[in-house]
Amino acid sequence: MNILDGKKIAGEIQEKIKDEIGQLKNQTGKTPGLTVIIVGENPASQAYVRKKHRIAQKLGINSHIIELKAEIAAQDLIEQIRVLNQDPGVQAILIQLPLPENHNTWEILNHLNPKKDVDCFLPVNLGNILLNRAGIFPCTPSGIMQMLDYYRIDLSGLNAIMVGRSFIVGKPLASMLTNQNATVTLCHSKTKNLPGLVKQADLVVAAIGKPGFITADMIKKGAILIDVGQNFLYQQHEVLEFCIESQQQKFKKKGYGIAGDIHIKAYPKASYFTPVPGGVGPMTVAMLMVNTLKLFKRQYHLE
Amino acid sequence: MNILDGKKIAGEIQEKIKDEIGQLKNQTGKTPGLTVIIVGENPASQAYVRKKHRIAQKLGINSHIIELKAEIAAQDLIEQIRVLNQDPGVQAILIQLPLPENHNTWEILNHLNPKKDVDCFLPVNLGNILLNRAGIFPCTPSGIMQMLDYYRIDLSGLNAIMVGRSFIVGKPLASMLTNQNATVTLCHSKTKNLPGLVKQADLVVAAIGKPGFITADMIKKGAILIDVGQNFLYQQHEVLEFCIESQQQKFKKKGYGIAGDIHIKAYPKASYFTPVPGGVGPMTVAMLMVNTLKLFKRQYHLE
Repeated sequence: MNILDGKKIAGEIQEKIKDEIGQLKNQTGKTPGLTVIIVGENPASQAYVRKKHRIAQKLGINSHIIELKAEIAAQDLIEQIRVLNQDPGVQAILIQLPLPENHNTWEILNHLNPKKDVDCFLPVNLGNILLNRAGIFPCTPSGIMQMLDYYRIDLSGLNAIMVGRSFIVGKPLASMLTNQNATVTLCHSKTKNLPGLVKQADLVVAAIGKPGFITADMIKKGAILIDVGQNFLYQQHEVLEFCIESQQQKFKKKGYGIAGDIHIKAYPKASYFTPVPGGVGPMTVAMLMVNTLKLFKRQYHLE
Repeated sequence: MNILDGKKIAGEIQEKIKDEIGQLKNQTGKTPGLTVIIVGENPASQAYVRKKHRIAQKLGINSHIIELKAEIAAQDLIEQIRVLNQDPGVQAILIQLPLPENHNTWEILNHLNPKKDVDCFLPVNLGNILLNRAGIFPCTPSGIMQMLDYYRIDLSGLNAIMVGRSFIVGKPLASMLTNQNATVTLCHSKTKNLPGLVKQADLVVAAIGKPGFITADMIKKGAILIDVGQNFLYQQHEVLEFCIESQQQKFKKKGYGIAGDIHIKAYPKASYFTPVPGGVGPMTVAMLMVNTLKLFKRQYHLE
């Protein structure tokens, strides 16, 4: 079993981006601009946004966070988006999801300029993935494809199973794997005989949100395991059951452990697997920076 | 084995549309406008366009065909599209594919107003399918879903296999089936062990373009078979092997027979199947009329 070391690859990608941003600044006097809008006070979202911001700044991206109260009127939120749409210094806009329940996500997202849609959430950008004509890709699927590419894993003809059909991970990733000639089965909560389907797969991607949901007995020997799950566990017996050793050790200090959707006992059966944390997570953040740089270069025709 | 009688359902749909168009004309004085652009002299495309035109006229749609020479300059073709984009009497524009090889399909299609994209080919419209937020759907997938709905076939939890990954049929239909809670495997030319995968499927959709490619031995007893293939056969032994009886009888008069991608010997194993011709084909044309009416109603806020 080999680790797909997302943390390492993400670090390398970030180094490259930092260098390129430095060079482009020397050439053009300009730096990429990323603005994240966060509405309400979801602590997980806040932590995630701060992390993105910190890394973006480290790479030389002109990063800003706009924090808005949950109660903001839809029209005021939309006005905020319009201002950013028109700001030539901002090439990348991220509206952190989920929005508080009083907002209609699509009523809001639809006002985003598709050319600044750094998360690749808008229909026109998702449609281009389906058409295999996309320039940018959603961050998590894109990070997964980059990892597989880094380890030179040839996807052509592989039987892949994607568990989870969100528009953020499952559906676009299924299309991206198909475009790379994998044979993809897209599973979800209504799927019957999931264990039987997983058992046939050469590549398993789990984006479910349930710790250890994909168990060792479901896995075919030699399969590649990609774990999108990031489940926070606060009970010691759960942490011992579902978390990798480093998380178990940190549990006493932190009071929680992070676990994936694939059970840790499945790892020894795999040819490759992504640890949680340190696999898909860091790649997702790195891809946000990749997309920001891409949108910047596109605006200034630097491609 | 039960026939999914596309011809019958398409006839019923057309009757409904005709009535509705008549009523809307009485109410508003307006009729839906459909314009088809055909470039070059592909005989199959010409026949298909004439058929659409004839049916559209029969239903009271203000239908026009614009025939252009293959050698037309891209900019002149685009100008033609721009004129139609701005014509308030035209709510639906269809650019018949394939375009002659001297044209870049996407360079041309991208100039189409997405609101008049009656075939649902543009990225923004395809993306909305993936997001399960679509108002219109590509004609062939939409016709298939209508047929399944007509016979009250519950797709939830079914294992479906989609053979063929075009952006016109396979990819959007895979998403539409997923949205209806089927578990979909999308197969294509690089898929390994296709027979094994087909054998597990409760629903098989074939859009390959090879007569009789899906054979009886691949099919699970009781499966639902949907055949998108329309293969023209000119050799008697092929017609006898691959065509349904009515086509075999017409062969002497016409000199050809039409066959599907699913072998006729698979039909007795199926719970339901679409005959070729008379299954998916008529539904596709009917859905073009449904889409034209939808775009008309959308323009005039009659929904």
